[in-house]
Amino acid sequence: MRALLLQTARTGATVNHMVQYIEARLDASFAALSDATRRGVLAQLGCADASITDLADKFRMTLTGMKKHVGVLERAGLVTTEKVGRVRTCKLGPRRLEEEVMWIERYRQLWDARFDELDQVVEELKRKERVNERRKK
Amino acid sequence: MRALLLQTARTGATVNHMVQYIEARLDASFAALSDATRRGVLAQLGCADASITDLADKFRMTLTGMKKHVGVLERAGLVTTEKVGRVRTCKLGPRRLEEEVMWIERYRQLWDARFDELDQVVEELKRKERVNERRKK
Repeated sequence: MRALLLQTARTGATVNHMVQYIEARLDASFAALSDATRRGVLAQLGCADASITDLADKFRMTLTGMKKHVGVLERAGLVTTEKVGRVRTCKLGPRRLEEEVMWIERYRQLWDARFDELDQVVEELKRKERVNERRKK
Repeated sequence: MRALLLQTARTGATVNHMVQYIEARLDASFAALSDATRRGVLAQLGCADASITDLADKFRMTLTGMKKHVGVLERAGLVTTEKVGRVRTCKLGPRRLEEEVMWIERYRQLWDARFDELDQVVEELKRKERVNERRKK
């Protein structure tokens, strides 16, 4: 029994760790996506790999500014970079935004259900109003 | 001709304004989603409306802290609030995250195409290697 309790506690801790890990990833990726330049960089790398210098030119930005943006994207797993000689090349990272889409999809289901509920409340109120008016006549 | 040029310039300006408007909305909504508490608040309001006090209790947070989070969600159009007497009730806002899903979907298409391309390059390299090895024999 004690072993079972211990195992359950461990499984609970593992699930907790996993949830925290996913939440931290969602924090990082949504923050990475919250900037028009960073979204532009992702779209650009979706067409072709590019060096930091190319990207800085393209988005009319200083090298330092672009390095910061690429750093944010890299930490979120959305971009990977590789330095060959003096050139750092950026390419799309391993993350396909699966968890982000799953989160938004779940939210939209809640949203739809919530607004359907409100529609029903409004319909019910309208129905009662019609009944009351008929009674007054 | 001058009128046409003027109109084209105007249409261009309108399109530019629209793009800027959508980009600003994406900035705001992705930033709003980049915090686990704010995502939790949205999920909570997807089940039932709640006052700021309820939400502060639920997420073990000060009223001031929760007001800030709700403010961020409200400015992104994800939450609306209404004050009746001394209680401010929060409910889901009008935005269903359509543009955010569209952005992510477009990104995933690019991502898929980009990785398919890389797969083809790897396949081509493997094929050449096999041909070279056969020649050596």
